[in-house]
Amino acid sequence: MTPAETKDMAQLLQQSRSASYVLGALTTEQKNHALTIFAQLIEENTSLLLHANHQDLDSQVGKISNSLYQRLKLDREKLLQLAQGIYDVIRLPDPVGQLLATTKMDENLILEKVSVPIGVIGIIFESRPDVIPQILALALKSGNAVVLKGGKEALNSNFAFMDLVEKMNAQCPWLPPHWAQLLDGRQAVQEMLAYNQYVDLIIPRGSNQLVQSIMASTKIPVMGHADGICHLYVHPSAGLQNAIAVAIDSKSQYPSACNALETLLVDEAIANTFLPQFFEAATQANITLRGCEKTCAILPHIAQATEVDWQTEYGELTLAVKVVSGLEEAITHINTYGSHHTDGILAQDKAAQEAFLTGVDSANVFINASTRFADGFRFGLGAEVGISTAKTHARGPVGLEGLVIYKYKLRGAGHVVSTYVGEHAKSFLHEKL
Amino acid sequence: MTPAETKDMAQLLQQSRSASYVLGALTTEQKNHALTIFAQLIEENTSLLLHANHQDLDSQVGKISNSLYQRLKLDREKLLQLAQGIYDVIRLPDPVGQLLATTKMDENLILEKVSVPIGVIGIIFESRPDVIPQILALALKSGNAVVLKGGKEALNSNFAFMDLVEKMNAQCPWLPPHWAQLLDGRQAVQEMLAYNQYVDLIIPRGSNQLVQSIMASTKIPVMGHADGICHLYVHPSAGLQNAIAVAIDSKSQYPSACNALETLLVDEAIANTFLPQFFEAATQANITLRGCEKTCAILPHIAQATEVDWQTEYGELTLAVKVVSGLEEAITHINTYGSHHTDGILAQDKAAQEAFLTGVDSANVFINASTRFADGFRFGLGAEVGISTAKTHARGPVGLEGLVIYKYKLRGAGHVVSTYVGEHAKSFLHEKL
Repeated sequence: MTPAETKDMAQLLQQSRSASYVLGALTTEQKNHALTIFAQLIEENTSLLLHANHQDLDSQVGKISNSLYQRLKLDREKLLQLAQGIYDVIRLPDPVGQLLATTKMDENLILEKVSVPIGVIGIIFESRPDVIPQILALALKSGNAVVLKGGKEALNSNFAFMDLVEKMNAQCPWLPPHWAQLLDGRQAVQEMLAYNQYVDLIIPRGSNQLVQSIMASTKIPVMGHADGICHLYVHPSAGLQNAIAVAIDSKSQYPSACNALETLLVDEAIANTFLPQFFEAATQANITLRGCEKTCAILPHIAQATEVDWQTEYGELTLAVKVVSGLEEAITHINTYGSHHTDGILAQDKAAQEAFLTGVDSANVFINASTRFADGFRFGLGAEVGISTAKTHARGPVGLEGLVIYKYKLRGAGHVVSTYVGEHAKSFLHEKL
Repeated sequence: MTPAETKDMAQLLQQSRSASYVLGALTTEQKNHALTIFAQLIEENTSLLLHANHQDLDSQVGKISNSLYQRLKLDREKLLQLAQGIYDVIRLPDPVGQLLATTKMDENLILEKVSVPIGVIGIIFESRPDVIPQILALALKSGNAVVLKGGKEALNSNFAFMDLVEKMNAQCPWLPPHWAQLLDGRQAVQEMLAYNQYVDLIIPRGSNQLVQSIMASTKIPVMGHADGICHLYVHPSAGLQNAIAVAIDSKSQYPSACNALETLLVDEAIANTFLPQFFEAATQANITLRGCEKTCAILPHIAQATEVDWQTEYGELTLAVKVVSGLEEAITHINTYGSHHTDGILAQDKAAQEAFLTGVDSANVFINASTRFADGFRFGLGAEVGISTAKTHARGPVGLEGLVIYKYKLRGAGHVVSTYVGEHAKSFLHEKL
């Protein structure tokens, strides 16, 4: 890192900070108008975007895996869906300016707690270029300035989207020019992470390794999830057919998703009945099982799981299966080996259901439902920044609400604190309005 | 750090984690019953606590400053106030188990967003031993396990409070024994900061240097405030007598508090009228002024301020004064030099008031009121963990609400995601209940 580069980053981030103050004061109409133009620009420029994307794809042929190639690839339908996603964000209520609480502290001394944008958000993502319009829409709607860093594989696609942002800015003079900036170069992320005075939140969208390395090297708060090691526990009171269907859906409906099932815990009281039927269904769904000793005693054809399996996010059609002595062991196993993402119980027994919901320390705890429901769109949040496994700020699927914080506004009429302290102290009213 | 020490810290924090799961499932009655016993134990053991405190005081005579000595010192009245503070916490509503939102995703597929404890909170504080009972009461009420690290000056006092915790635990078998643990030794904090798998939040209560060094050396989220560089801006529309009274109260009512005024910004349109009158009031209140060039032109007797003054939290009866060209310069100065803690405008003009509230990027933004009102008790939060200048999770005075997060509970009846995708996808209802 040369001093010149350092200076550039500081300047760039100061511009983001200044832009954030302008964004924070925009009206809902100004933000929605700009978003409409952005969606229209995407619809009108699909050829231009696809051309840039083809350049990226051509340069990566043979260099990246097929799954990475698929993530990198845009098509006309995907682009129209992205535009549709922006129209959806327009229809969401403005998360800024919500009056969260009002307290009458005394006559003419009124305290309001009001939602405001977080400020400047750094988004670090890997190959998927479609992250840019999604994130920009959510950031603009919530009044946050953004600094983006994408994967180098998607460079041309990313720049093509940023060209549309410039066109939008030109059509919307109320937008501050630097509200969305794209970083370039491998050193850029490390440089940005040093400026906690200008960046308020980092959202990494990528591998566990990426998230962990970012958390270790910055004072800026980081919102993201590490692994998605999700569990289902089959309680003796489970309806067998339901339990099998939910487990199969959780594993196979989209195996590479972070909310896909990785370990199935089966109560020993029903293991002999459940496991052979489940094995048949799993085999039909092309799911490979790896079992604990007790599981293998019932299903001798499957591979034996080791300690490593309980800590693995397979991301493919492999499922670890463990027989547990009961609800308590299931909860302990999940809290010990899980990633506090999404875990469910399959049971009819109400007491077991509630004990599971309380005892499992995960962002999403489910009864008789597929782990794949853990998703911002499915939850009805309207849009999703990502799924957080953090225990502060925002947890689980994070929508627009996760991109705002609040400030306290106090309106007085010359009130001083000395009135309320000491021997003749006046009492506060503290009336909730 | 020897391996043995590492192992001890991991074990200790695992015990905290396990305890947190038990705490999270306690009823409001169980928590309030324990808190009542804790308050009574403090009331009944004042002599024992004061004896331990005297040992600390004796060992520090001549070693620490008078202000530090005063912070270290307990007396009977302080202890009874601490007990009273615990009774106040008992009367606060339980922040855990609050239903924050309910969504009917489909028939028999109901999503609830419910508040839960954060989990394990590490509290690092300096000399004040009275932090322990305050924090323990808030942590217990919010269902969080705590790991405490106090200053070595207060060792005997801290252990005396922890002895009472053991007595409380013995009388309350529903409390997990390790729900509150006190660390010892200088290496302990650094060791704890490495265990982000066991500790969910760090709250440092101490110097800016302490907070910054903790943020730099851990992946665990940190909630705290750095400096408290608070401003008032005197707008031309300000009522002069009101403005003077509010500024004097903000500076002198308790100058070492983080919400005390450090820089007064005076609009040049009223500087000639305001400053001489303010100077008289400040002099009567023993406040020493340091002014910008324009201020010194009007008040030639005061010292000239330099760039450093705008960045200084004096913590004593010194006040920096700057003449600004108008509202815009005032806002820019505050956002540039302030610590985003508490800043106010003194004005009768409504448009200026609202522009200030929107434009100033601080946790607390005030109109015609002393900056000293920025406080959890005064805001009516009932109790305060501290004041946060962070832009995520909790901002401003943080009460019990800042010690909880939420989880999503989804109750289904065998629902699978494949029903809701593909060509014949069923639509979600997403009905807010």
